[in-house]
Amino acid sequence: MISSQVNAIPTKPDYSAAISELQAQFGEQLSANLTVCEQHGHTMTWLANQPPDAVLTAQDKHDVAKAVAICNRHKMPVIAFGIGSSLEGQLNAPYGGLSIDMHALDAILQVNNEDLTVTVQPGVTREQLNHYLRDTGLFFPIDPGANASIGGMVATRASGTNAVRYGTMKDVVLALEVVTANGEIVRTGTRAKKSAAGYDLTRLMIGSEGTLGIVTEVTLKLFGLSECVGSGLCHFPTIEDACQAVMLTIQMCLPIARIELLDALQVKACNQYANLDLLETPTLFVEFHGTEASVREQAQTFNDIIEEFGGTDFVWDTNEAERKRLWQARHNAYHASSALRPEAKALSTDACVPISRLAECVSATAKDIADAGMIGPMVGHVGDGNFHVLLLVDTDDPVETAKADEIIGRLAIRAIEMDGTCTGEHGIGQGKQKYMDQEHGNAIPLMQAIKSALDPNNILNPGKIWPQPLVIETPQAVEV
Amino acid sequence: MISSQVNAIPTKPDYSAAISELQAQFGEQLSANLTVCEQHGHTMTWLANQPPDAVLTAQDKHDVAKAVAICNRHKMPVIAFGIGSSLEGQLNAPYGGLSIDMHALDAILQVNNEDLTVTVQPGVTREQLNHYLRDTGLFFPIDPGANASIGGMVATRASGTNAVRYGTMKDVVLALEVVTANGEIVRTGTRAKKSAAGYDLTRLMIGSEGTLGIVTEVTLKLFGLSECVGSGLCHFPTIEDACQAVMLTIQMCLPIARIELLDALQVKACNQYANLDLLETPTLFVEFHGTEASVREQAQTFNDIIEEFGGTDFVWDTNEAERKRLWQARHNAYHASSALRPEAKALSTDACVPISRLAECVSATAKDIADAGMIGPMVGHVGDGNFHVLLLVDTDDPVETAKADEIIGRLAIRAIEMDGTCTGEHGIGQGKQKYMDQEHGNAIPLMQAIKSALDPNNILNPGKIWPQPLVIETPQAVEV
Repeated sequence: MISSQVNAIPTKPDYSAAISELQAQFGEQLSANLTVCEQHGHTMTWLANQPPDAVLTAQDKHDVAKAVAICNRHKMPVIAFGIGSSLEGQLNAPYGGLSIDMHALDAILQVNNEDLTVTVQPGVTREQLNHYLRDTGLFFPIDPGANASIGGMVATRASGTNAVRYGTMKDVVLALEVVTANGEIVRTGTRAKKSAAGYDLTRLMIGSEGTLGIVTEVTLKLFGLSECVGSGLCHFPTIEDACQAVMLTIQMCLPIARIELLDALQVKACNQYANLDLLETPTLFVEFHGTEASVREQAQTFNDIIEEFGGTDFVWDTNEAERKRLWQARHNAYHASSALRPEAKALSTDACVPISRLAECVSATAKDIADAGMIGPMVGHVGDGNFHVLLLVDTDDPVETAKADEIIGRLAIRAIEMDGTCTGEHGIGQGKQKYMDQEHGNAIPLMQAIKSALDPNNILNPGKIWPQPLVIETPQAVEV
Repeated sequence: MISSQVNAIPTKPDYSAAISELQAQFGEQLSANLTVCEQHGHTMTWLANQPPDAVLTAQDKHDVAKAVAICNRHKMPVIAFGIGSSLEGQLNAPYGGLSIDMHALDAILQVNNEDLTVTVQPGVTREQLNHYLRDTGLFFPIDPGANASIGGMVATRASGTNAVRYGTMKDVVLALEVVTANGEIVRTGTRAKKSAAGYDLTRLMIGSEGTLGIVTEVTLKLFGLSECVGSGLCHFPTIEDACQAVMLTIQMCLPIARIELLDALQVKACNQYANLDLLETPTLFVEFHGTEASVREQAQTFNDIIEEFGGTDFVWDTNEAERKRLWQARHNAYHASSALRPEAKALSTDACVPISRLAECVSATAKDIADAGMIGPMVGHVGDGNFHVLLLVDTDDPVETAKADEIIGRLAIRAIEMDGTCTGEHGIGQGKQKYMDQEHGNAIPLMQAIKSALDPNNILNPGKIWPQPLVIETPQAVEV
């Protein structure tokens, strides 16, 4: 048996023995149809589609466990697929292998109203969960842009607009059930709100992008719906002013539920897209949760804060229809941006910095985009120092794609140099591997030691997070 | 080189070569004085004191790195010591080795007011940090009973009375600097509030009780001090009624900052200790943080809630002196309990369950204590489902000690069977190893694989968390 280390995409081993065994086990649940495979190697970046060799539609956790065990014996890569909304090529199969589609694992297993917890299968989407909860007075707050699956959100450590108040997936997951690399089903954590018993495997799995285990059950914290919600928006002369207002809001412990920044270009895009007439300056969209009196008090305090920094035209409302109208521009941001250049692909990147550095980071990035003659409106979850750039790129044009790559790279390095991170919520996948060294330095060997310990054959989503040398051994004929 | 697996405390290898090398390196910073060593094998349980072979007073992170590298070469255990307030024998040295005393690493390195972050050395205590912050309008909320060191609080995943609102160490640590088993200094995380870049080594280190690395720097989130604080207390006919009131408080999103339960015996102890005349029934102590209007509204809502469950005599105040008076009994709880039987040792144990099971768990435990004819008042961080029993035990009496051990064991197993944990905030150390299997089952091999990957020589606090077989190889003579 000869083993060789490969850094680029290697000649793909012959997985036909593994696939035969999977076919014998799963029959029509398994597909090797190229279109199906390409759909599961789905990528929303400029990265080329790299389809798996086959797709398994899992019906339950035991399917997942059996499939992973087979893959492990054959040393064949295995990649879990939720709904395909990840943004950094997390679902690509650079070394081929099996994609396990989890969409049929969509049961909401147990709601515990008294404890504010719920246990779900990984294929449940966040909107499905909230729809299910609609009569309970409870809700699940984590809201990445897409209607992502909960399993996928665990894998990428997702967050969204509510994170400033309710946290990220790191904060709301109480326990997981995962299938490990050898096909065992393991539970991490309990329904207790806190524990000091042993290593925090739950947090280790969250954000590991399917490289340490495949999630088959998730126990989440829920939150009570507020008696009253107030939503509003206001305008600022500059990004700096808006960021200063955000900082003071956080420092004053205002329990703000959402605070989102749109830059002037993004506001312009929203005006064009939906025939609005918002002032085309940096704009904050805010939301307050609480009792009626508390929401009114928060809005008043917020108004006092923004006036210190030149904020104007603050309007807010607690009526649902009016709230929706006020936030329409924020909700339309993605589509409005895309419409600025309909023939281009909208590439979304994100970074996160200490909030004191946010204005500087946003401004320098805007300058990069302008200098390159590109279009890239920005939207930020600014209470967390996290923001997104939506670069509109003709990905068929290699020069333009290279320019976009350079802008994203400069942003990533800038964020890291500001003691921040190259990604606040999208993850590393394939797209941001090149910044891992600069962000984590000598912590990377620790991560890799953990990876090797938990997945010695490197079958779990290989080629993600860092450019992982895959030790490929000639697959052995295995007794089926 | 012969290696042997040992489950009990083995014949201790001869570490004289290692100690000579440490002496040559550190001179008077190193002590092998037995009294000093015994102080550093400090344990606040019935577990026997197991002193290390030597104690190093580290002056900076480089001392720690050098010492660990020496220990690693000699395969000698190394245990970090903060202030010695851990409760489950975490600091004992069952296999001997070196204790590194971190108290001199007590610098507050950087406060970032705008970002609400601070970076400290691990020997800083929580009270020292809050004293330092007193003029900034910011505070650090995590408050285990003792004035623990921040490094120790990281190691045990500490929390306390504020956790219901502000979280535990898992939630407030942004980044760490740790010395790994080979003596390298590694940084985990950044000052960004969130990140999706790679494995969450920070959360893996938190709660690992010094078995994966030694913390040399901690970056923490801070919080703004509230404009107004209201503190109060009220009484309930039964534990069940008090717990029902707590559940509704949490479900209604009341942003309660503290909600602490004292059982009737604990209240009686407090009355006796400080000449108070509180009603000797289950009592909730609460604290509200916010603006003046919000605090008043919270108190009103809380009053409405408790009336539904037979709560009475709710008094609260925002005046600092009056607040202190009202909470006096809660602050005295430990000493008041101990005074119930001054000649006994007060053994503190904790467990954490989903809040819907709390009343049942507390009541069953009270019955166990009564059946055994023992004294064990209870105090709970009930918003988190976490509570403590303070068993008053004559630890010189083996029969009584065995009874206490049985009560603690029954509580641990009961909590686990209720989908909770055998420890919410004290950790496993030596005292709770026997419950790890029942709580974590087949997740333990994953934890141990991580331990082996990051500490192949098993030098970092061996014999903690699980009864770790120590592979002892005859130490080699090493060129000094």
